[in-house]
Amino acid sequence: MKTYFECIPCFVRQTLDAIRLITEDEEVHELVLRQALHEFSNMDLRQSPPLMGQRIHRLIRRLTGRKDPYRGIKDHFNALALELYPRLKQTVEASSRPRETAMRLAIAGNIIDFGVNSRIDSGHVHEAIEHALTTPLEGEVESFYEAVSRASRILYLADNAGEIVFDKLLLEQMPREKVVVSVKGFPIINDATMIDAGNTGLDRLVKVIDNGSDAPGTILESCHEEFRRHFNETELIIAKGQGNYESLSETEKDVFFLLKAKCPVVAKHLGCRIGSMVLRRSGRVPITAVACNESPV
Amino acid sequence: MKTYFECIPCFVRQTLDAIRLITEDEEVHELVLRQALHEFSNMDLRQSPPLMGQRIHRLIRRLTGRKDPYRGIKDHFNALALELYPRLKQTVEASSRPRETAMRLAIAGNIIDFGVNSRIDSGHVHEAIEHALTTPLEGEVESFYEAVSRASRILYLADNAGEIVFDKLLLEQMPREKVVVSVKGFPIINDATMIDAGNTGLDRLVKVIDNGSDAPGTILESCHEEFRRHFNETELIIAKGQGNYESLSETEKDVFFLLKAKCPVVAKHLGCRIGSMVLRRSGRVPITAVACNESPV
Repeated sequence: MKTYFECIPCFVRQTLDAIRLITEDEEVHELVLRQALHEFSNMDLRQSPPLMGQRIHRLIRRLTGRKDPYRGIKDHFNALALELYPRLKQTVEASSRPRETAMRLAIAGNIIDFGVNSRIDSGHVHEAIEHALTTPLEGEVESFYEAVSRASRILYLADNAGEIVFDKLLLEQMPREKVVVSVKGFPIINDATMIDAGNTGLDRLVKVIDNGSDAPGTILESCHEEFRRHFNETELIIAKGQGNYESLSETEKDVFFLLKAKCPVVAKHLGCRIGSMVLRRSGRVPITAVACNESPV
Repeated sequence: MKTYFECIPCFVRQTLDAIRLITEDEEVHELVLRQALHEFSNMDLRQSPPLMGQRIHRLIRRLTGRKDPYRGIKDHFNALALELYPRLKQTVEASSRPRETAMRLAIAGNIIDFGVNSRIDSGHVHEAIEHALTTPLEGEVESFYEAVSRASRILYLADNAGEIVFDKLLLEQMPREKVVVSVKGFPIINDATMIDAGNTGLDRLVKVIDNGSDAPGTILESCHEEFRRHFNETELIIAKGQGNYESLSETEKDVFFLLKAKCPVVAKHLGCRIGSMVLRRSGRVPITAVACNESPV
């Protein structure tokens, strides 16, 4: 997906969110914002939005020296999700369709995205869970599990800290011996890294690798060799979240995108409404919206 | 009021709105947006937001040759307001407090502001009227009319096309022989100019002058000599809308600001909620919120 003009106000907001997490010094805010605006004025709109996200956050790190401003937020949402996990697992187990329920909850966890909304709190998470469980399901969940069952190897591109605990519910419904989960190679917004995989026990459930990149999506040129080999050699990819959709929507690989469509640009590109819970397969397979109702986001 | 970082996403949106009114050519959109972003990266944040608005729209005019892209929108809202006018006038006349009702409606008309929201339609106007008439009134309407009664000369800074028809209701409650209304000197967003004063009959109700400026507010340095003389020599100023508030909030003149607070930055600066109908006197007189309820905007 290319970068749309409508992404720019969002980049500005994201820049301000990140820099305000780091310092209250308005002179630093102004310095960073001016340089970011200069970057925006020269950006290549044919590239996907995560490339600009990567540049903005590199700029912020360079100008402030802070490597991981979202560390506290990531810890908070890992802890919140781990607290919710036993009840969510019971919900899956008590469900008449556990595989579907696990998928719904994994998508609900995608609400924890500080790239789109820096005011996410536990109330939003509870609402997203409620919404995911109560919205009528239209979708080809079965074709997802069929593809999972057929594939010899699966690469699961994780998205955010906290969200990866919700992903565990879905991974528990899958043949884990053939799944590899990837997290980001370096801190970027609140995306999960190996620290989060360790802190949430994801790495004890399934093999986890890092992708070597600091982009808030999957920009292959930015990933290390081992990840690219996994990506190219694995027949089925499961990609969580907007950033992975934005950066891989034109891929020729067989990818299932699982996400909440949280911004108008992504919702329009997917052909659904904001708040929709989306399960879309790449290539020619048409969109399968799990639920196209408005969400509280 | 200075320019806040939060104004920048709004400038970007305003740039896109204006350029899309002019052309569907995405290459022109991109050219204008890149140059606007470059301007933003170098702007002086100590200046008020209307200065940047003025610069953006000068840039758009220079790059496209189109002098008045909002002319159609202004005609549309003048016509809509003129259609509503007889009924609104009846509402004022039937009211037990006609002077208060006229002020409420004049503030309601401030909803027609394409600088803040380019999707304003007749539904929003009807909602704003309903809101203005039904929301409990807290405010010193009487002190406004007392000041009007005492002043020997009054300068009324009009804001937008369409809105000026609502202003007529308020002007009809005032001693019109001592009132001069000013409109913008050149087209800027949907702000009223002499064309609108003529098309709505405002110039037959009261003396109307133009301020000589193309800023979406009142930046004195940008106004012509005659207007500045009026401004400096007139003891009481009535200023409609956000742009006039943003550009004159620090003035030493005696000004009554009448506006709907339609953006979070202005609402925060005023100390009220978004959607509030505000009557505020400049200087040391504290804010007088006519109504601080949420509006449909």
